[in-house]
Amino acid sequence: MLKSKRKNKSRRIGKIKTIHGEVNTPFFMPIATKGAVKNLTPEEVKNLGAEIILGNTYHLWLRPGDKLVAKVGGLHKFMNWNGPILTDSGGFQVFSLGAKAEEKYGLNGVKLSDEGVEFRDPIDGKKCSMTPEKSIDIQLNLGSDIIMVLDECPPYPCSKKEAKKSVERTTEWAIRCKKYFFKKVGNRKSRPLLFGIVQGSIYEDLRKESAKSLVSLDLDGYAIGGVAVGEPREKMKDVLKWVLPLLPQEKPRYLMGLGRPEEIMEAVNLGIDMFDCVIPTREGRHGRIFLWNGNQRSKIANCKADFYKTININNEKFKNDLSPIDKNCNCYLCRNYSRAYLRHLFATKEPLALRLASIHNLKFYLDLMKILGGR
Amino acid sequence: MLKSKRKNKSRRIGKIKTIHGEVNTPFFMPIATKGAVKNLTPEEVKNLGAEIILGNTYHLWLRPGDKLVAKVGGLHKFMNWNGPILTDSGGFQVFSLGAKAEEKYGLNGVKLSDEGVEFRDPIDGKKCSMTPEKSIDIQLNLGSDIIMVLDECPPYPCSKKEAKKSVERTTEWAIRCKKYFFKKVGNRKSRPLLFGIVQGSIYEDLRKESAKSLVSLDLDGYAIGGVAVGEPREKMKDVLKWVLPLLPQEKPRYLMGLGRPEEIMEAVNLGIDMFDCVIPTREGRHGRIFLWNGNQRSKIANCKADFYKTININNEKFKNDLSPIDKNCNCYLCRNYSRAYLRHLFATKEPLALRLASIHNLKFYLDLMKILGGR
Repeated sequence: MLKSKRKNKSRRIGKIKTIHGEVNTPFFMPIATKGAVKNLTPEEVKNLGAEIILGNTYHLWLRPGDKLVAKVGGLHKFMNWNGPILTDSGGFQVFSLGAKAEEKYGLNGVKLSDEGVEFRDPIDGKKCSMTPEKSIDIQLNLGSDIIMVLDECPPYPCSKKEAKKSVERTTEWAIRCKKYFFKKVGNRKSRPLLFGIVQGSIYEDLRKESAKSLVSLDLDGYAIGGVAVGEPREKMKDVLKWVLPLLPQEKPRYLMGLGRPEEIMEAVNLGIDMFDCVIPTREGRHGRIFLWNGNQRSKIANCKADFYKTININNEKFKNDLSPIDKNCNCYLCRNYSRAYLRHLFATKEPLALRLASIHNLKFYLDLMKILGGR
Repeated sequence: MLKSKRKNKSRRIGKIKTIHGEVNTPFFMPIATKGAVKNLTPEEVKNLGAEIILGNTYHLWLRPGDKLVAKVGGLHKFMNWNGPILTDSGGFQVFSLGAKAEEKYGLNGVKLSDEGVEFRDPIDGKKCSMTPEKSIDIQLNLGSDIIMVLDECPPYPCSKKEAKKSVERTTEWAIRCKKYFFKKVGNRKSRPLLFGIVQGSIYEDLRKESAKSLVSLDLDGYAIGGVAVGEPREKMKDVLKWVLPLLPQEKPRYLMGLGRPEEIMEAVNLGIDMFDCVIPTREGRHGRIFLWNGNQRSKIANCKADFYKTININNEKFKNDLSPIDKNCNCYLCRNYSRAYLRHLFATKEPLALRLASIHNLKFYLDLMKILGGR
């Protein structure tokens, strides 16, 4: 599925085949949590160069409901995106958003057992129950191209005892997910891919144990979860160094929730193929804009982190700046508008600001992936 | 400039020539108050069928400043719209928004004199002064294609004495605007158009006096202002019946700030050529969607108000409605999405909802104008 070439031996270039077409690696998935990339149409997202997007099992299950989505013919049809879609399993959100319900309703936010997890919908307090099988059902109803197994994603910091328990549970759940998944899809030739998620916090033995157990299940790809949850950046690199040598070369590797551009560059150089992150769109909505910083191709080739910089377009100094946002970018914003215009839109709270900034930042991330992939 | 044809003798079909091209009448101007149509790119607005948009002198003068816009090469270049732009004079906003400053800063919001009007910027409390000459200067700096004279727009209700004073002042200011305008543009062959604004509240003699005085100035077109400010709908029709026969047939007539679709239909039938209104975009942002209601062409031809209906897409009943928003519409929303999807976007506060609803409602208004214009 994947081949490695170029000077950097770890960096990999390849393709992943899915029901909805091939995706070139390494790639970045724009986030369509609730079935829409914030402020953008699927048409725009595609034109920016995205080949695959990410939907969120947890959110779509609660609203509008996976059964409704199935009735329309799947998430692709519902949201009008005809390329591949990866859906996360909902594990991360159950834990992170369950806590919000606790604050709001004064209830136990999350009740975890070997069977699965019970929690309160943070919006209406309704009791919900998620199990490995349920997560697979939802993702099949959504019509996902890449299905993630349900995992237990512990927070950072986390004791070794807790981390060990979460690794064991994640492996158990992966076994149940795989069994249930193949019971449902049978021996269909064209089926979604099923990915495992390596946990183990910052503990070397646990990370390795998690990776080995999952690899023995012979899944279609492997994600590294429980990163970018607050741990120091060096720890995250350690995790990659422990885990990646244990993963099969020919299968895709996905670093969940990462990251800043230099983190993505480093991770690609270590052998990661897939990324998703809210940074380009979320920071864009706050006026933080990514800019190429001269000779970016050669800097990236030499693994120099200064291949980009950011500006806050809300800054007074851009008020009369009639230059383009980034003369090295050919996105819709940079082709048509000045810094002064974008700043004006932010200063006057015009919603077009959010859209134009999202377009630019996503293009930056997607172009970065092209450079990293030699495309 | 304009010719009248078809069964209805009052209804007019024609073209207005501007520096940035011709516009077919009757037409509707999407509102780009601060140099952007809310949530939409100029490209989208054009593709929806808009031939001209409206910018706001008052807002653009205060932020980002007309001098900055002039430095970029005008509003067209600043906001990337290469079709015609009409700019209102700022009169309406000085009066309506000035009152907000009064609430906020406890100062006299608006000080009116024959010279012009002084007011406080409602955002930062800064003292500002608007005169007829200043309004022309700003609109020339913005590079407007159709410039409106500064008027005094009284609220509704308004005593006859007040209305009389505002008519006199509006005429005086129109004279000053015209004088200053031609001093500035000289005898340039290609110049912006200059429109007058008829005032007089709901008083027949004052409306007629205002119309006659302005017509004697031989301006390029005439607007009817001080409508849609809270008066009963019948009163507005009376105003049109008093004023329209006094306006020259060959010059465009603009009904400011109108209106609902049936109001626009009625006004076109009475001989109005130009409209602007926040309704399609503002209501769209609240989930109120305009739908054609069967045989709309024949209903409009026969002046039946039931050619459309509205739905509130937030309504629970659309939760599982997999039908298109409007099967008689071919906008991006209706071509690609179900009612259930749009409702889902509104229910989960996804910003794409605002954009898709704005696209649809604007297309509805622009298509209505095409039907009314026999295009």
